Amino acid sequence: MEIKHQDHFDSVRAFEWCDGTLKLLDQRLLPEVCQYNEYRNVTDVARAITEMVVRGAPAIGVTAAYGVVLAADARFAESPANWKQLIIEDLSSLATARPTAVNLQWAIQRMREVIDTLDSNPAERLLLEAQRIHHEDVAANRRMGELGASLIKDHAHNSCAVLTHCNTGSLATGGFGTALGVIRTAYASGLINQVYADETRPWLQGSRLTAWELVQDRIPVTLIADSAAAHLMKQGAIGWAIVGSDRITANGDVINKIGTYNVAIAAKYHRVKVMVVAPTSTIDMNTLNGAGVPIETRAEKELLSTVDGKRIAAPGAHAWNPVFDVTPAELIDAIITEKGIILSPTTEKVSNLMQQ
Amino acid sequence: MEIKHQDHFDSVRAFEWCDGTLKLLDQRLLPEVCQYNEYRNVTDVARAITEMVVRGAPAIGVTAAYGVVLAADARFAESPANWKQLIIEDLSSLATARPTAVNLQWAIQRMREVIDTLDSNPAERLLLEAQRIHHEDVAANRRMGELGASLIKDHAHNSCAVLTHCNTGSLATGGFGTALGVIRTAYASGLINQVYADETRPWLQGSRLTAWELVQDRIPVTLIADSAAAHLMKQGAIGWAIVGSDRITANGDVINKIGTYNVAIAAKYHRVKVMVVAPTSTIDMNTLNGAGVPIETRAEKELLSTVDGKRIAAPGAHAWNPVFDVTPAELIDAIITEKGIILSPTTEKVSNLMQQ
Repeated sequence: MEIKHQDHFDSVRAFEWCDGTLKLLDQRLLPEVCQYNEYRNVTDVARAITEMVVRGAPAIGVTAAYGVVLAADARFAESPANWKQLIIEDLSSLATARPTAVNLQWAIQRMREVIDTLDSNPAERLLLEAQRIHHEDVAANRRMGELGASLIKDHAHNSCAVLTHCNTGSLATGGFGTALGVIRTAYASGLINQVYADETRPWLQGSRLTAWELVQDRIPVTLIADSAAAHLMKQGAIGWAIVGSDRITANGDVINKIGTYNVAIAAKYHRVKVMVVAPTSTIDMNTLNGAGVPIETRAEKELLSTVDGKRIAAPGAHAWNPVFDVTPAELIDAIITEKGIILSPTTEKVSNLMQQ
Repeated sequence: MEIKHQDHFDSVRAFEWCDGTLKLLDQRLLPEVCQYNEYRNVTDVARAITEMVVRGAPAIGVTAAYGVVLAADARFAESPANWKQLIIEDLSSLATARPTAVNLQWAIQRMREVIDTLDSNPAERLLLEAQRIHHEDVAANRRMGELGASLIKDHAHNSCAVLTHCNTGSLATGGFGTALGVIRTAYASGLINQVYADETRPWLQGSRLTAWELVQDRIPVTLIADSAAAHLMKQGAIGWAIVGSDRITANGDVINKIGTYNVAIAAKYHRVKVMVVAPTSTIDMNTLNGAGVPIETRAEKELLSTVDGKRIAAPGAHAWNPVFDVTPAELIDAIITEKGIILSPTTEKVSNLMQQ
């Protein structure tokens, strides 16, 4: 049997901070081209988030935190007396770079709280906070990996296959991954023998990113068309559908990549269990349920044309391109956070966890 | 209000027969290029079916019938005495060009029955039979269009939107279409106000073919990612999911394009009604249920690479590419055939219809 080195997992990084520059791996070019773009001001960082150079709710949060560092540097240089006033505009712009993932607001709010305590040059203290957010996210992912794997172990007599949707790995987080972190940990422990990955149209995060990460980790990965998920579950090998989240509302509704809701409905029909893996920074206690979450709609061309810009559909055809959907709590068997596991989520259970 | 001319619908043809040559519209190139390939022997026709120059269960049946004409011509020229013996091999090859659609076997069997009655030069009589199969299919589609529209009318107080999957129009049939025939008729009658079409990965029949047909007919069409179907249904506007079929088994299970099963499960969850539209040539009374139907699996590259052959997924990733799935009868509200409507299909109801 091949020895699996868990510490070798997680070999890719969505971002690096180096001498006052934020480097973002351009995820639009993967897996063909592995290119880091350099960012030295917050406006460009906001645009990189909007244009999906970086994506994945936790990764967006970490990126925004580093963006705040760049903003503070520039505003302090501009006016050491008024920088805390001037930076408000930057934080507002950054917060609207994408509408759905709550981790973006969460990270900016955390940076804002540090800003409020500062009197002098903000650079060092804010960079420390951004790095703390970054490292806490990786630690949360490691912890969730253990918790999720333990839940799989509790429910299975044998090693099983799992289905995942979109990309929730190192590229989507500070590192290691949420759903993919659980998959990594469970695979290393022999609890999972095969990963099926939805290709995840239209952006193909499954084909381009998840498969890439898993191949590097030597975890067997088989792509399927998103529409083949139910047929796959019917074959009987899938034990769990394991996904991440961009926002979890107070009642346990899960907002995640378009198609997650389809997967969850099909899973319920086949009695396949649904696990959502997300740090508590993804939980939005201010929104009662999924109906209150703004769902981003992106350009029609993502469906009407190929990634290379070649038109697919007949001129005159339109497209509806929502990027996320809402999976109601009733379809979810478990939410894994770094603070613990919520089984069959309810408002009360989510509230109890957040108060720990 | 714009006047809709139903007779203008159906402006495209998957095939033409002209002076001993079968012309097939190369559906792999649509909608960018509209090119007819010419076929003069049955081997090439079989390959065209395998390689999906032509697809759609009824269209495959009609194509095979014309293929038998070409085979008979050649075999009779080769040996007027033994052509009926020699053609057996051609019919066998043709029958295995694709495994799932039963219309292929059905059409070949019908041509075989005519062959059995022939003594002299087969050309004229077999061409007549192929054309009869072709024209009967168009007539069946027109009739199903009326029946399906009447069912929509019975259930709706207002005009509704519908969701369809894959392509079931003129390109997939002898002409007019099965599910798309119902949509055409119902739109012309004001019963449908909007068509949503799944893009239908990996071959993108929805984007490339269905949208193309509907744009030509000036029927409003909006494409969605296959994975957005449940989220769309959640919005409340979809009255029916309307699909075709490649084979319906004796108990009413429906084998159709991969993803149909996903759509049907999501429809059940949202109380959206599911209508399957298929001529009785699609009904396979010799197979008890969907478990007995061979499901074609096509090459991994259809998922791992773009249509242009550019690799999408990381080297080392695999793909599972089943082309069809099985929707159990319990998820189907109505099967529309040219002989009538079956509500909530059962073995008894299917049998009764076939005995009419």
